[in-house]
Amino acid sequence: MKLWEKGIPTDQKIEQFTVGNDRELDAVLAKYDVLGSLGHAKMLAKTGLITQEEAIELSTALETILATIEAGAFRIEDTFEDVHSQIEYLLIEKLGAAGKKIHTARSRNDQVLVDIHLYLKDEISTIKTLVKNLFELLMHLAEKNQHVLLPGYTHLQVAMPSSFGLWFSAYAESFIDDITLLNATLQIIDQNPLGSAAGYGSSFPIDRAYTTEALGFSTLKYNVVAAQMSRGKSEKTMAFAMSSVAGTLSKLAMDVCLYLSQNFNFIELPAHLTTGSSIMPHKKNPDIFELIRGKCNKIQSLPYELTLLTNNLPSGYHRDFQLLKEGLFPAVESLKSCLEMAHYALKGIVVKEGIFEDPKYQYSFTVDAINEMVVNGIPFRDAYKIVAEQIENGTLIIPGNTKHTHQGSINNLCLEEIRQKMNGSY
Amino acid sequence: MKLWEKGIPTDQKIEQFTVGNDRELDAVLAKYDVLGSLGHAKMLAKTGLITQEEAIELSTALETILATIEAGAFRIEDTFEDVHSQIEYLLIEKLGAAGKKIHTARSRNDQVLVDIHLYLKDEISTIKTLVKNLFELLMHLAEKNQHVLLPGYTHLQVAMPSSFGLWFSAYAESFIDDITLLNATLQIIDQNPLGSAAGYGSSFPIDRAYTTEALGFSTLKYNVVAAQMSRGKSEKTMAFAMSSVAGTLSKLAMDVCLYLSQNFNFIELPAHLTTGSSIMPHKKNPDIFELIRGKCNKIQSLPYELTLLTNNLPSGYHRDFQLLKEGLFPAVESLKSCLEMAHYALKGIVVKEGIFEDPKYQYSFTVDAINEMVVNGIPFRDAYKIVAEQIENGTLIIPGNTKHTHQGSINNLCLEEIRQKMNGSY
Amino acid sequence: MKLWEKGIPTDQKIEQFTVGNDRELDAVLAKYDVLGSLGHAKMLAKTGLITQEEAIELSTALETILATIEAGAFRIEDTFEDVHSQIEYLLIEKLGAAGKKIHTARSRNDQVLVDIHLYLKDEISTIKTLVKNLFELLMHLAEKNQHVLLPGYTHLQVAMPSSFGLWFSAYAESFIDDITLLNATLQIIDQNPLGSAAGYGSSFPIDRAYTTEALGFSTLKYNVVAAQMSRGKSEKTMAFAMSSVAGTLSKLAMDVCLYLSQNFNFIELPAHLTTGSSIMPHKKNPDIFELIRGKCNKIQSLPYELTLLTNNLPSGYHRDFQLLKEGLFPAVESLKSCLEMAHYALKGIVVKEGIFEDPKYQYSFTVDAINEMVVNGIPFRDAYKIVAEQIENGTLIIPGNTKHTHQGSINNLCLEEIRQKMNGSY
Amino acid sequence: MKLWEKGIPTDQKIEQFTVGNDRELDAVLAKYDVLGSLGHAKMLAKTGLITQEEAIELSTALETILATIEAGAFRIEDTFEDVHSQIEYLLIEKLGAAGKKIHTARSRNDQVLVDIHLYLKDEISTIKTLVKNLFELLMHLAEKNQHVLLPGYTHLQVAMPSSFGLWFSAYAESFIDDITLLNATLQIIDQNPLGSAAGYGSSFPIDRAYTTEALGFSTLKYNVVAAQMSRGKSEKTMAFAMSSVAGTLSKLAMDVCLYLSQNFNFIELPAHLTTGSSIMPHKKNPDIFELIRGKCNKIQSLPYELTLLTNNLPSGYHRDFQLLKEGLFPAVESLKSCLEMAHYALKGIVVKEGIFEDPKYQYSFTVDAINEMVVNGIPFRDAYKIVAEQIENGTLIIPGNTKHTHQGSINNLCLEEIRQKMNGSY
Repeated sequence: MKLWEKGIPTDQKIEQFTVGNDRELDAVLAKYDVLGSLGHAKMLAKTGLITQEEAIELSTALETILATIEAGAFRIEDTFEDVHSQIEYLLIEKLGAAGKKIHTARSRNDQVLVDIHLYLKDEISTIKTLVKNLFELLMHLAEKNQHVLLPGYTHLQVAMPSSFGLWFSAYAESFIDDITLLNATLQIIDQNPLGSAAGYGSSFPIDRAYTTEALGFSTLKYNVVAAQMSRGKSEKTMAFAMSSVAGTLSKLAMDVCLYLSQNFNFIELPAHLTTGSSIMPHKKNPDIFELIRGKCNKIQSLPYELTLLTNNLPSGYHRDFQLLKEGLFPAVESLKSCLEMAHYALKGIVVKEGIFEDPKYQYSFTVDAINEMVVNGIPFRDAYKIVAEQIENGTLIIPGNTKHTHQGSINNLCLEEIRQKMNGSY
Repeated sequence: MKLWEKGIPTDQKIEQFTVGNDRELDAVLAKYDVLGSLGHAKMLAKTGLITQEEAIELSTALETILATIEAGAFRIEDTFEDVHSQIEYLLIEKLGAAGKKIHTARSRNDQVLVDIHLYLKDEISTIKTLVKNLFELLMHLAEKNQHVLLPGYTHLQVAMPSSFGLWFSAYAESFIDDITLLNATLQIIDQNPLGSAAGYGSSFPIDRAYTTEALGFSTLKYNVVAAQMSRGKSEKTMAFAMSSVAGTLSKLAMDVCLYLSQNFNFIELPAHLTTGSSIMPHKKNPDIFELIRGKCNKIQSLPYELTLLTNNLPSGYHRDFQLLKEGLFPAVESLKSCLEMAHYALKGIVVKEGIFEDPKYQYSFTVDAINEMVVNGIPFRDAYKIVAEQIENGTLIIPGNTKHTHQGSINNLCLEEIRQKMNGSY
Repeated sequence: MKLWEKGIPTDQKIEQFTVGNDRELDAVLAKYDVLGSLGHAKMLAKTGLITQEEAIELSTALETILATIEAGAFRIEDTFEDVHSQIEYLLIEKLGAAGKKIHTARSRNDQVLVDIHLYLKDEISTIKTLVKNLFELLMHLAEKNQHVLLPGYTHLQVAMPSSFGLWFSAYAESFIDDITLLNATLQIIDQNPLGSAAGYGSSFPIDRAYTTEALGFSTLKYNVVAAQMSRGKSEKTMAFAMSSVAGTLSKLAMDVCLYLSQNFNFIELPAHLTTGSSIMPHKKNPDIFELIRGKCNKIQSLPYELTLLTNNLPSGYHRDFQLLKEGLFPAVESLKSCLEMAHYALKGIVVKEGIFEDPKYQYSFTVDAINEMVVNGIPFRDAYKIVAEQIENGTLIIPGNTKHTHQGSINNLCLEEIRQKMNGSY
Repeated sequence: MKLWEKGIPTDQKIEQFTVGNDRELDAVLAKYDVLGSLGHAKMLAKTGLITQEEAIELSTALETILATIEAGAFRIEDTFEDVHSQIEYLLIEKLGAAGKKIHTARSRNDQVLVDIHLYLKDEISTIKTLVKNLFELLMHLAEKNQHVLLPGYTHLQVAMPSSFGLWFSAYAESFIDDITLLNATLQIIDQNPLGSAAGYGSSFPIDRAYTTEALGFSTLKYNVVAAQMSRGKSEKTMAFAMSSVAGTLSKLAMDVCLYLSQNFNFIELPAHLTTGSSIMPHKKNPDIFELIRGKCNKIQSLPYELTLLTNNLPSGYHRDFQLLKEGLFPAVESLKSCLEMAHYALKGIVVKEGIFEDPKYQYSFTVDAINEMVVNGIPFRDAYKIVAEQIENGTLIIPGNTKHTHQGSINNLCLEEIRQKMNGSY
């Protein structure tokens, strides 16, 4: 990162400028690069472009590299500019001529495309699991705290009675929509791009249906130019889906930060999850939720970064695409950690009972009081007048609970239906 | 818009500031507001909150208003700040007490939510149709021009042979991914929010399952707080899906503008679709495609606008949400017009034959020439040397076509498979 | 906007697509287009490209049009696609051959550039005035309420004593930075682009130094290609400066909305500026400040829209640039109205005294209590222990005021210095 | 980055989540943190809050740390979460009680604010130097190639004659506007925030005018709340200015990539700056300029990231602000490297002579041909007819040069005036 130091030789500067932190970023792709090569090698043998013996040699060597990767012992050396050249070098070093043949009918672009598709498939699956875990926790908290009332706000003004049951399960149900978007993203990404070569296909008689199956893709991105155009577009779609999850989580974090403020004081977090101050014992800074909020907001800027990188570029590969990884990969890690941390921190949340004893919240029952009279046959205008007078006289009796009984309301949370919807969407 | 004029009275300024161009924007919602009220009225009768007679009166009056809207004769008068109050006024004017009852167990927020959900459902369907139409045209053009070669570029450098068949059908196949995202958006929006009232449900015993069916929603957004939180989130999801379509279309428009340049000269558009200059007869400005590109790029900024409007706001309604419509509605119209215009303009596109007669494109066959020797048994290093010499001597024979025969390549476009994929996704 | 209606003839659709709402948008440019033509006509006469008589005829006719514009009676008819052709038509209609000569050595691009530069110069000046007015009001409120204490928050947790004096004047001082950015924008825009013609200059011997003076520009954008490249770049710079103002104002609006919540209850607004509810008398929805916040957040998305419209386009005019106006002009109006409304609404703000009587704010004095002992010679560790004990025993005496006396703190607001800084920057 | 690994203990996960890569990022702040502490220590002695002896001890220890930093030997150990605690630890380790006193009347927030202000001041200065260097090179290239004609495009269509002189100096003059914005940013950042403590000032009698001078700030950000609010706002302003530079550079890079395409072939770059292909000798991939373009486009997304991080947060510190550094610091490095690389690569640029021998560019002279006849007294309509006929007959004589002589046109580049403008703005 420190290009602008005095005394760095020009060649090294150019190298730093063009390679950047690609080696680090590529580390997450190593596994997928090997998997892609395994599929490609089998196809080459199947179509006769290499011999069965060469295919076996290549597969054995690739499996060894895969084991190294999974053991955490794989490194991209400084002499290689990316993961692809490092792995190819290892194959050639070990197998000689057979090693060189792995690159038959394939290009670097091909490899990056396949790697990123396989990588994103895995990550979507992980993110879905984390969202599901958080969903389950929120549903559990909703059930557990379903009878604890909470003021509901509009315009940041106390408005109507709500409940912790509603609040927790509202976020749970919202996450189902994010799962729907993740699923669509998965469907878009789960198409085999291998065989587009430099973006226009190959004159070798490769078998793309075969690699589609070998690599576990659901279908083929048929058109080779379309396959190449999925670069940038896949990343943007992933960024949209991640933004959607992040948007839900950021809003939840904002609520938590607000509710922890002394001015609301609706919830408590375990001491080790807030940053206190020894001389201000009342202070419980919700750093974890502030960071969840901030990280999720940052993730929501990713689509714009990726759009700016790719926009108004005509079709065909451009080197600019290398920079897509820089924003995407850390955002994926960040979103996963936010989901994990939110789960960890919410597990210990404690809700306050008796919030409505504070008179400032009691007005929120006036609409219900009027509605009740209306249901009992008193005309609205009369009911309204009576309640207005009760307010003025201080004689309005605040009920211990609400009469909300319709689907999805305080006393009828429909948790089972929401669970079924999640299961149907997941 | 001209608030800052001297001499405007303060009250009028405040009115302009708070209402803005809401009346204009709300015009598209009128139809959906009536449909929502029709469903709501039936439910009120079904649950006994109003009488059957009142329901019939309301339905009849609402149908009359719907007819006015469909005849284009509906207006929101200046004395009403939005479509909801205008329609409610008409009901009360006609029916008296019964008219007032339409608002039982419902809030303005409820209505906006339902209206926007119904509106977006319709618009997604329209956009899908327009994308499908454009897909069909591109597939037709791909088929018709499948044997006309086109240079393929990487880094904006001539790289490999491509074809108009590949180029047209690449965009067609790309649009399938956009359809997938539109479908996910539809699934997310196709959930009944009615009954959330001000965002926390109602103490009236309403039947939300009934309105779900009456309004034609696939399912219920159960949790009333989740229903309210779909405000902003629905719009953002729609903006993501529209951005996806717009991104594909913008890239196509960029290609068209480039290919129309005298420096490429790969295609021609009918004279009435380009802006010429009487004294520069060579000049054929592709204004329509520049505007498609520009409008689609503008659409891609919509998610950011909507995110900024809603981000870091805690749960519950905020007046800021009113501004979501300002960006969304015109963007929907703009995207539809871009898709329609692209279809109209591409219908007349003429591709140039014989592009490869220009020597600057001929080098793009060198990779294929080497590959061919390799397939015929000549080692790569030797093949490479021979071709390099042929290039230097000017004796490299450029083939009339390519050997690309694998799935999705020049001579095997898999158009049928792509059509099937679209039909499966649509 | 309703392009996608059935039955609209194609030509009309194309016209709507390409012209859009340009006539409406161009209305604000009419005045500047006439001023630009006045300067251009004088220059043509000065360089002998037209006669003095023709210049006088043109000037007289242009002055007449200007009077019509200023009287609000100017209209762009449907037969003209923009303001430039409308005005040129009026000149030709009135003057015949002399009218046609106004377009000598000039292009439509030239006119748009000049018009937008003159327009933005005026609008920056207006925005500066409005910011200054708001600054003065905030300074006045700071002075008036300087002794009223307000809790200061970090992490949304009660942290330290602050004051209304600090709060009001903090925003005032922040606006000075926005003025600095507006001034830089003015300097960038205050360069004459006239003479770039279609972007590459003219073969007529025009005198650009003369028009620079005639049009009141501070300097010339010399290079004609640079002048053309200022299209898009000027608008983006303006958007940055407006975003800066909007960011400050949006944050202020967020504070106001929060402080009006019953959970804070730090301020009050006059009844006619909040939206209440007859049956919830405690509810005072701060709609105006929510709309200021929302509109200012929308303005902050403008730079992104303009960047997406122009990014990755090579040098030279593109029709996409026409769309720059669509986002920019309404944003300028919106920002001015937000500044004006904020001024109007804050004039009536009432701050609450005695906030610190609520025990939850009293802990915010603990740091000061310890500091005071430290200043009086008690070692920090001992002071800390004493205060901790006082807190536990409930014997901590909360002072009526703070000892903050350094520059810019509660008891030393440096309002005069801040005023001087504003005057120096303005 | 790999938080989501199995088997990492929770505490470590939380630590990773909250500290992240802050240590790495903070490395660039170390120098400024020491400088800030040096100024603070002197002020403490001056106001009597510490003794002169303590101040000398602190200064000496701080100077030693500064020397370590400048020698590249400073490290933030894993046991410290940021640079501030590391440096404070070193002071306490060395000086004991005196070391602890450095934190008197100061908070961590204070330090971050001061560090970032000092850091940005330095970086703006460096960026200005790099922009100036690039300006000088572009001016040199404009002068050297001023007589070489280049086609000028509008709508990507060949339009009018331009020249390399115009092209190079257009970007040079554009960069002056970016300097203006950098200067405004410098003015905004060059205000001392020290003394805001946790955002609300201190009860210690500190002397902020003294630290303003000691730290070399031009003025004081008086209001302590305003000083705190500059967090986020300073970063956004810096991001605007960097976006402006990046926008100019990205456009230049786009032109270079296009002009290097075989379809334009207007320029050449030295072989070592393009990535070729041994078997496609015509291919000269402009990777460096594609990466400049991509990196500059990524930089242009920074304002949106920072806006999303800070938007709708009420006043006062929030932990989210920690994440501002993550986007800002790498963007600063990236912009500097882009400017440096552009300078390095453009030094070797070779422009093509004789471009206009290609007939496709010759029509670009038709406007000039007509204008010349008009200047010579032939009525426009007649001149137009003559030229149209000449075009049709192929008898239009293309001049060897243009008659463009006005300020800023091909034959009158006003390079001296542009240089003076830069010097006046710099």
